[in-house]
Amino acid sequence: MHGKISIVGCGLVGQGWATVFARAGFQVSLYDAVEGCAQDALDGMKSRLADLHEYDLLQGKSVDEVIQNFEVAETLEQSVEGAIYIQESGPEILEVKKTLTRQIDALAAPNTPISSSTSGFSASLFCENIKGRNRCLVVHPVNPPHLIPAVEVVPTPWTNSSCVDAVVALMEEVGQQPIKMDKEIDGFVVNRLQGALLQEAFRLVDGGFVTASDLDKAISYGLGLRWSFMGPFETIHLNAPGGIADYAQRYGDMYQGIAATQIETSHWNDVIAEGVAEEMTQKTSLSGIADAQTFRDNKLMALLKHQKSLKEEV
Amino acid sequence: MHGKISIVGCGLVGQGWATVFARAGFQVSLYDAVEGCAQDALDGMKSRLADLHEYDLLQGKSVDEVIQNFEVAETLEQSVEGAIYIQESGPEILEVKKTLTRQIDALAAPNTPISSSTSGFSASLFCENIKGRNRCLVVHPVNPPHLIPAVEVVPTPWTNSSCVDAVVALMEEVGQQPIKMDKEIDGFVVNRLQGALLQEAFRLVDGGFVTASDLDKAISYGLGLRWSFMGPFETIHLNAPGGIADYAQRYGDMYQGIAATQIETSHWNDVIAEGVAEEMTQKTSLSGIADAQTFRDNKLMALLKHQKSLKEEV
Repeated sequence: MHGKISIVGCGLVGQGWATVFARAGFQVSLYDAVEGCAQDALDGMKSRLADLHEYDLLQGKSVDEVIQNFEVAETLEQSVEGAIYIQESGPEILEVKKTLTRQIDALAAPNTPISSSTSGFSASLFCENIKGRNRCLVVHPVNPPHLIPAVEVVPTPWTNSSCVDAVVALMEEVGQQPIKMDKEIDGFVVNRLQGALLQEAFRLVDGGFVTASDLDKAISYGLGLRWSFMGPFETIHLNAPGGIADYAQRYGDMYQGIAATQIETSHWNDVIAEGVAEEMTQKTSLSGIADAQTFRDNKLMALLKHQKSLKEEV
Repeated sequence: MHGKISIVGCGLVGQGWATVFARAGFQVSLYDAVEGCAQDALDGMKSRLADLHEYDLLQGKSVDEVIQNFEVAETLEQSVEGAIYIQESGPEILEVKKTLTRQIDALAAPNTPISSSTSGFSASLFCENIKGRNRCLVVHPVNPPHLIPAVEVVPTPWTNSSCVDAVVALMEEVGQQPIKMDKEIDGFVVNRLQGALLQEAFRLVDGGFVTASDLDKAISYGLGLRWSFMGPFETIHLNAPGGIADYAQRYGDMYQGIAATQIETSHWNDVIAEGVAEEMTQKTSLSGIADAQTFRDNKLMALLKHQKSLKEEV
């Protein structure tokens, strides 16, 4: 029997989380401080579940079976009562996180993990002075969590290791892929990797070496193909006969030489103003972004279905 | 009617190029300075074509139709004679590139582009003193070129723009995705982007924030999914309601702040020696690398077939 999950904050991130837990068979209690928001979220999710079902992304359940796992809570107390896990996805405002986490801590059963979806703050910034800080941590999804399995599990210096382990196990149980961090750092792993790559992308465009559109091809028709099923370390481990150590021997100096020229950053706003914004809006106009997001999510769902079919073949 | 392509150097990179041109219907002349190498390459390619056919990656041709497009040349002169394009994939040794490029230039018809597959050198380093330097350039594939469409087209300061344009058009004609650079830089685009991401990956592992295996998940179950069909600029353009300019306004400061902490590099060899090599070989032992490469290439072929089926649906 699956337990109860409390979703606190029902914006797009909270809705993604709710879907993740409900399709895995958990009872999901939706709460949002803004009146009517949780009910609106429920209605929004219902319309998206049909798409997920079409791409076989509901873990074998029907849309109705998933919907039966949702309930709307009138109060925070009602939502967290009896919950075995709480995922907070409130506004990205430090004071709000402080207040909300304190409220949750006061209401939740002892040892129930209190996870925040924040991308901008380490949990130690908002839970240091909270009684139950040893069960607070960041569990940061890559959006949207019901389509992208990677989640970053980031403990504070005070988080109990048993709490971290329980969260990692829960994430695996619901089909996510937890990246367990051992300590906090700004940007965690995903945004630090993305940021490092973006800084070089902006540098190359700023320096007049390549257009943004052509640079995009280096990823979407190049590195991104392998990276959709193996990470950067595994990639280089397979790119030399003697594995990663051999790769570093062969190419490490080349990369360290390049790194020495990757220090100065370009100012994104300047580069964007000098032509990149125009170039990108020629491909996708601002009024077309919502449709392009839908198209992207359909491609993501098709990719996940494809990957699943490969696994079933093996 | 398609013309003749000369492949100079028949290692794995040359073989990949040969496959790219032959499946597109070009006559491909194989030459290697090492006796017997071109014939061995032909035999090796034949065995791989069946796999490509299975995944529908021969542009509608049968294995026999593609094989008919190959011929082995006994001499360099014979290979480049009448060729409309020459792809050199010789050893990565500067002196060899200098000699080989000079020989090719002396034998090839005027204006035939002479492209090098080198990843390590800008073409200006080996063609400056060659008479036909205005038709020399780098055309660097991401390996293997018959599975990964992205190719970097990198002119020297002397390369005719008409030559660059012809190469870009040829790459598009054979189904590759040319990344047209406007000037040379070490590492070109692909390895500079990969290097920037790897530097941060090594930094995070070195700093004790995350294991290499968990970091890999941030790409293979996270960023890499979207990047398999859209580049980093398009990704952020779709990640804010107002497009890339809006994204930079919202998150630019965060990323610039992170960038300030991404300057010092970790020494790859040290990080690898401290546990990463062991971690990676536990997943794939050194004796298992060849099989893992085959498995990776099968996954790549399946992904390309999947992407093609999506395009045909639209």
